[in-house]
Amino acid sequence: MSETFSSEFFLLDGHHARRLYHEYAGSMPLYDYHSHLPVELLAENRPFTSITEAWLASDHYKWRAMRWNGVDERLITGEGSDWDKFRAWAETVPRTLRNPLYHWIHLELQDFFGIHGTLLNSHTARAVYERCNRLLAGENFRPRALLERMKVRVLCTTNDPAESLEHHRKLRQDPTFQSSVVPSFRPDRALAVHDPAAFMRWISTLENRSGVAVRDFDSFLTALQKRHELFHEAGCRISDHALEDPGPESYEETEIEGIFSTILSGAAPDPSSARKFRTCMLTHFARMNSRRGWAMLLHLGALRNLNTRRFQELGPDSGYDAMGDRPPARRLAAFLDHLKGREVLPKTVLFNIDPRQNNLFVSIAGCFQEGPVPGRIQFGPAWWFNDSREGMIDQLNALSSGGLLSRFVGMVTDSRSFLSFPRHDYFRRVLCSLLGQDMASGIIPEDWELVGGMVEDICFRNAERYFGIPAAG
Amino acid sequence: MSETFSSEFFLLDGHHARRLYHEYAGSMPLYDYHSHLPVELLAENRPFTSITEAWLASDHYKWRAMRWNGVDERLITGEGSDWDKFRAWAETVPRTLRNPLYHWIHLELQDFFGIHGTLLNSHTARAVYERCNRLLAGENFRPRALLERMKVRVLCTTNDPAESLEHHRKLRQDPTFQSSVVPSFRPDRALAVHDPAAFMRWISTLENRSGVAVRDFDSFLTALQKRHELFHEAGCRISDHALEDPGPESYEETEIEGIFSTILSGAAPDPSSARKFRTCMLTHFARMNSRRGWAMLLHLGALRNLNTRRFQELGPDSGYDAMGDRPPARRLAAFLDHLKGREVLPKTVLFNIDPRQNNLFVSIAGCFQEGPVPGRIQFGPAWWFNDSREGMIDQLNALSSGGLLSRFVGMVTDSRSFLSFPRHDYFRRVLCSLLGQDMASGIIPEDWELVGGMVEDICFRNAERYFGIPAAG
Amino acid sequence: MSETFSSEFFLLDGHHARRLYHEYAGSMPLYDYHSHLPVELLAENRPFTSITEAWLASDHYKWRAMRWNGVDERLITGEGSDWDKFRAWAETVPRTLRNPLYHWIHLELQDFFGIHGTLLNSHTARAVYERCNRLLAGENFRPRALLERMKVRVLCTTNDPAESLEHHRKLRQDPTFQSSVVPSFRPDRALAVHDPAAFMRWISTLENRSGVAVRDFDSFLTALQKRHELFHEAGCRISDHALEDPGPESYEETEIEGIFSTILSGAAPDPSSARKFRTCMLTHFARMNSRRGWAMLLHLGALRNLNTRRFQELGPDSGYDAMGDRPPARRLAAFLDHLKGREVLPKTVLFNIDPRQNNLFVSIAGCFQEGPVPGRIQFGPAWWFNDSREGMIDQLNALSSGGLLSRFVGMVTDSRSFLSFPRHDYFRRVLCSLLGQDMASGIIPEDWELVGGMVEDICFRNAERYFGIPAAG
Repeated sequence: MSETFSSEFFLLDGHHARRLYHEYAGSMPLYDYHSHLPVELLAENRPFTSITEAWLASDHYKWRAMRWNGVDERLITGEGSDWDKFRAWAETVPRTLRNPLYHWIHLELQDFFGIHGTLLNSHTARAVYERCNRLLAGENFRPRALLERMKVRVLCTTNDPAESLEHHRKLRQDPTFQSSVVPSFRPDRALAVHDPAAFMRWISTLENRSGVAVRDFDSFLTALQKRHELFHEAGCRISDHALEDPGPESYEETEIEGIFSTILSGAAPDPSSARKFRTCMLTHFARMNSRRGWAMLLHLGALRNLNTRRFQELGPDSGYDAMGDRPPARRLAAFLDHLKGREVLPKTVLFNIDPRQNNLFVSIAGCFQEGPVPGRIQFGPAWWFNDSREGMIDQLNALSSGGLLSRFVGMVTDSRSFLSFPRHDYFRRVLCSLLGQDMASGIIPEDWELVGGMVEDICFRNAERYFGIPAAG
Repeated sequence: MSETFSSEFFLLDGHHARRLYHEYAGSMPLYDYHSHLPVELLAENRPFTSITEAWLASDHYKWRAMRWNGVDERLITGEGSDWDKFRAWAETVPRTLRNPLYHWIHLELQDFFGIHGTLLNSHTARAVYERCNRLLAGENFRPRALLERMKVRVLCTTNDPAESLEHHRKLRQDPTFQSSVVPSFRPDRALAVHDPAAFMRWISTLENRSGVAVRDFDSFLTALQKRHELFHEAGCRISDHALEDPGPESYEETEIEGIFSTILSGAAPDPSSARKFRTCMLTHFARMNSRRGWAMLLHLGALRNLNTRRFQELGPDSGYDAMGDRPPARRLAAFLDHLKGREVLPKTVLFNIDPRQNNLFVSIAGCFQEGPVPGRIQFGPAWWFNDSREGMIDQLNALSSGGLLSRFVGMVTDSRSFLSFPRHDYFRRVLCSLLGQDMASGIIPEDWELVGGMVEDICFRNAERYFGIPAAG
Repeated sequence: MSETFSSEFFLLDGHHARRLYHEYAGSMPLYDYHSHLPVELLAENRPFTSITEAWLASDHYKWRAMRWNGVDERLITGEGSDWDKFRAWAETVPRTLRNPLYHWIHLELQDFFGIHGTLLNSHTARAVYERCNRLLAGENFRPRALLERMKVRVLCTTNDPAESLEHHRKLRQDPTFQSSVVPSFRPDRALAVHDPAAFMRWISTLENRSGVAVRDFDSFLTALQKRHELFHEAGCRISDHALEDPGPESYEETEIEGIFSTILSGAAPDPSSARKFRTCMLTHFARMNSRRGWAMLLHLGALRNLNTRRFQELGPDSGYDAMGDRPPARRLAAFLDHLKGREVLPKTVLFNIDPRQNNLFVSIAGCFQEGPVPGRIQFGPAWWFNDSREGMIDQLNALSSGGLLSRFVGMVTDSRSFLSFPRHDYFRRVLCSLLGQDMASGIIPEDWELVGGMVEDICFRNAERYFGIPAAG
């Protein structure tokens, strides 16, 4: 069978790439500072029922590929049996050639299940299915074990301010568990005032969780500040925000009180007021982050739920999102300038959805750098639709030519699956391949300490220093 | 003389690329599902008067290159003699180095005229001119023979709904002619209501052709439906639309009747009404296409006739068009969602003019895929200004990393010249080169059945299955 | 020590690239048609006080890198000593790996200071500092000597119409000085009517310099025309304009008189009037340029002074600018069409800030080409944030596939530093590497006269023919 994707040389063309990978990158632990893993699964630590659950239950990347391949929705999100769904997926896999999925899933089969030299397709589907299911039933394939096997030193989950942090507490109480699993503070719902009924339900949870009755804008802020503090105590050092557009709208604090009263009364604010409210809230979150030394992750530009029929049937995060393309330069710069002008610009990581805007994002990040934190404004890793070999190369090149690659805090999984950690390995191979080629062709010097040190920094140490998340235990 | 551009190895770097091309791609017939060839020339099948007529009479790609090179317009579209024009072009050719024209014309000299190892320039111009003219006078260089020599199995021309299909009929009656030449349904003039006089002249032709008197919106639709049906009988399976922007405008069917009455009365509708009318018409065309299983080709984003002086002198399609850059994401998604919401979203091929939007187009296509048709929403081939080696690589990479390359329906000539078919060969070399490199470097497995099969699918079989155009005879 | 960046083979991979560089590109003199060098330094010709002055006093590229690296502003633009600033820069240098700065500064250390095989970092900082300072004190390192050493045949500085040209005159009077140093006409302040006080101060200088009292729009034009003529006599053949957006606004000449009266009265015009005034002025400059055979350089799309706090502290050109992203297609085409419609479209060089718009710019340039000048509308070289190996490759590829690379007028330094001329050499290596690869892989023919001739044209001869700047002496 094929030697393709064997872990030793995969993507590593030439001596320099291999040495960078095997002597520097390969041995570093993982620092996964942005993930959507459900922390309750780690807390409960039950085995997976099948590879179908582990792979296909919530992975909209795979769903999109199956739909593109003409698979019936019944075998994607519908009532099909575990085996039927797996088979439909296995038939799709050869059709994903050159899509990152093709690499990801074969790396996962190797790294977790020891399946080398077998390509998944309709012929191999049954054997792979049975082997994976057998292994998944064992002790070594429970969620915590998967993290430890992959040397995940830090994992940041994504959590609403009104969420309980009991699962994180439970994990901290396990002295044998080697990974720091900490929450990220994701207050998107605090901005979602276009749907007053949903907003009020969320306010009610927030009140219960914080012990603060939300009667006006002041008490709303107090409740959020209490949660921010509690998240900090739980090891959180990151707030995370998904925005199509960060454009600031000028506002007076006094206006905001009136707008918030309107919202509390159950009415949606007009669009301009909603934008003012959003800017004001983001400014408050930036201030909290600045005070506690947190970083602010901005996930910018995605368009969501574009297929209305399917959204009505399946809800969000079902594979009906796309890249947006509103020209962001003026608004993004104005937003950062707004925060800088108020002295509340925290460390910030910019995630960009449209790869053609990479160079532009880097040029804007460069306008807000200042000591003493190196790389204070980060150009984040290749995100979502860009999470491919080509997308990573584009991100690395844009950051290199317009900024300082050496200060990059590196890759994240951004995934809902416990089997996605090999994406870090994938990134490291791409990084080492790029730098190895540069060394081989004399574009960068053959200085192993310099280049190898940079590789280690990007794989782990930069993130460790930048985020300052306390170690496990 | 130079071995450059010899047909055996050109663009095929390494063993894998060559084997993919020679064992898989090279032998496939051509499926040219979008072309601007004038069908009357095929029907008449007269020989060309000269290589100047065949190459330079209507090719605005070459005109642009000559203008860029400082050639006087007299020798481009003006009164210059055939030889003077050819000489001016031959002097321009060496100046087009690295432009796709340089490759195209040398491939055409090889494949049609057997001229190998000669580069066209001022020194070789006379000999090339005479050889080509001598050959073009012969039986084997008449239009139908050119198609057969290039193994064109299917050719879709581009036709207004009010056009007679007599030439297509005549071709079908030639039992010796091996190619299926079928019309595409291109109703751009049904949307061109900004010029009421021209619109009314077109309506009059439509009435004559359809036998339906257009008295109101209903009878207008009836006339178009009759033509759609007749096109179907002539083997047509494609409607084709050129739009700067597909953005839908909400409308009520009842409004449209009023708007159409205004137009019939000879007045141009206001811009908002024009957009409503356009959306409504596109929805009707989508519905007709859905019912008959046709595909809808959307050519999006071009800006036309930007040089007013030259447009006044030379008319449209004279080389004064450019890429547009209106951010299309929201409007394109909304348009597809509009059709999907009415259950009239047909198979759709999206042609994108601005290469920086490739990834975005693929991400939007991915939101509207569903079975049972694989690749229901296609990301079309590198179009117009992107029809270069680099443009094709970009298109293939964007489709690969964001969708399923394996389901791609492949290349078209999109040309007005009977000598352009080697562009398919050019595309195949680029495709095989890309996949061959991937195989050689272990990015895709060295599985000849898998990769070779995908090559054959993309070169011919995917289009054959997807469009379902009936075979010749 | 490392052989990296040794001048013989650096960036030149393979036989073809090396031969193109060493036999064709390397021996050509420099034609630097756009630079921000202060001509008074050339006129005075005093030695530099230190490498810190020569490198760090005004180079916002280096400042941005230092800020990204977390360096305190005191050591960038503040009160730090020359040595402390240099040390902070030297510590930053290894962190710029893969940024063009890393290549630029090592080429400069080689080409000017004979430092080969030493990489600048904290360990080598002291020795490099002392060697450079020692050399800079000598006769051979005065400004004029630096130009001559680099074989700068033509240098165009950037000058306001109200500037005296006495320094240029002084240089012309030095019969031993080999370089033609001529002004470019940069009338940005003639459009800067948003700040009436500053505008009126500038008008006053213009009056003094031109000897024309500006009482109304007519006399304003007269004053500018006089300066345009005087610049022409000083060898100037270029006007240069920095615009975020060239979009034309329709206007009547009579309106402009009223708008200008308003401005003269000390009031800022409303935005629409300001746009009309701008369009009118650019039209007048285009007309002057057309009459005298000048070229018009348009630097389009940059956003400036995005960090308000820093702008207040440090002023413009301090490293707080970024790429803009307003979709330019319609407005740029409309602007060129506006000039073409009035028969005042001069030779034009379009500089594009956002690399994703390269292909689009080329497609628009192609709509306005016409003889007899080859490449009348130029797609300018990789500019500012794009001035990297990757950015240059993108620019060359976009120009190649959409236009005629062979007619390209080549690279500029666009720099404020006398040590930046090796950027021409860097460009030449990139160009030869790209063409050499194409030759090696059969993408272009192995025709040395054809390809080598094109290299020489792009390095020097095209610019010499296109701009027609009179030779020194």
